[in-house]
Amino acid sequence: MRIGEMSRRTGVPVPTIKYYVREGLLPPGRLTSPNQATYDDAHERRLRLIRALLDVGGLKVAAIADVLAAVDDPGKSVHKVLGVATALIVPKYADEEADAELDAARHEVRELIARRGWLVDGDFPAAEALAAALAALERVGHGAFSQVLEAYADAAEQVARADLAYVAGRAGLDDLVESVVVGTVLGDTLFASLRRLAQADRSARVYESDESEGGMPGIEGD
Amino acid sequence: MRIGEMSRRTGVPVPTIKYYVREGLLPPGRLTSPNQATYDDAHERRLRLIRALLDVGGLKVAAIADVLAAVDDPGKSVHKVLGVATALIVPKYADEEADAELDAARHEVRELIARRGWLVDGDFPAAEALAAALAALERVGHGAFSQVLEAYADAAEQVARADLAYVAGRAGLDDLVESVVVGTVLGDTLFASLRRLAQADRSARVYESDESEGGMPGIEGD
Repeated sequence: MRIGEMSRRTGVPVPTIKYYVREGLLPPGRLTSPNQATYDDAHERRLRLIRALLDVGGLKVAAIADVLAAVDDPGKSVHKVLGVATALIVPKYADEEADAELDAARHEVRELIARRGWLVDGDFPAAEALAAALAALERVGHGAFSQVLEAYADAAEQVARADLAYVAGRAGLDDLVESVVVGTVLGDTLFASLRRLAQADRSARVYESDESEGGMPGIEGD
Repeated sequence: MRIGEMSRRTGVPVPTIKYYVREGLLPPGRLTSPNQATYDDAHERRLRLIRALLDVGGLKVAAIADVLAAVDDPGKSVHKVLGVATALIVPKYADEEADAELDAARHEVRELIARRGWLVDGDFPAAEALAAALAALERVGHGAFSQVLEAYADAAEQVARADLAYVAGRAGLDDLVESVVVGTVLGDTLFASLRRLAQADRSARVYESDESEGGMPGIEGD
């Protein structure tokens, strides 16, 4: 198809498509004349993947380039490729100078990993992101929020089991890695949305009856 | 304390603190002379909250202003304030034109909410974010990923239960709302990090033994 048709089919403006090609996110079309290129279904699918990572996943263009390079890299073992893909799509955290809170949080993360028997290194990027989040909680006076950690870890194990079961159903390595990337990025949004809905439900059940009084809730029963 | 001391204690540069005051994120200090203001512990705590929302939560300054306005708004019932706070911190999704995928996804979300008996409206912002994520999965050819939805929803209910239990332990309305905001934003990062760690663990268990063969995994047993 021509670039104009791919633009109509995906809703991505032609100049934006050209920008993705220049940035190396999208392979160039096949030239059919010096000024004309043609694009196939693989281009369209890749374009939709880029948009999903941008719009819903909230990734930046540079991060998408790294992720797609991992997707396209042949000859890596499955676990290695999964490791690269998930390491690249780490939850956002600031690069922080080590301080007492971060040191304590890293220790807490190492203990959690050991306690759960998780087969991951303590310097896995997500472990650092987790430590940064715990340190940030401590700094804003909500260190006690870490009491939810075990409940969260139980839930994360269930979610990861569902994730891997989905991934395992994919046919080829390309498809498998793409499904990890898509599932990782969109799965975060999926879960965060479900968490909000479940929170709203819990909040309605716990607090709604106090609504008429307009005051502080009595929450002994929960 | 002087602004310089607050800067040293929090690691936030003085010009940045002044910027937050100009943007209305941080209340001005109390003037002790025409050119000198003094700040107290409440300022310091608010400043740390702003940095946590920015650095770890990844919120933009305008979103933080909205969230803090909700935190500071007195006389709202608890459930209403929680609703405002969680609605403002919705998972990122693009404003999309309605299309067949989005319509189908919205329908799927309404069915999910009904099936789980969740006390939330179908037009709750998180419901729209969930529909956007499902539509994006469909568009990139991974609509089948929605097979994880029930496992995710189970996990989300557990997490929300832990969240509300934490919130219920807070003393006053200010503190309660602040804990919702902090828990919502940092909780997303917390959970996403734990999900990566649990995925890495699952991946190691499922694929590591195939490592030596360098080929595609046989995953019948899972």
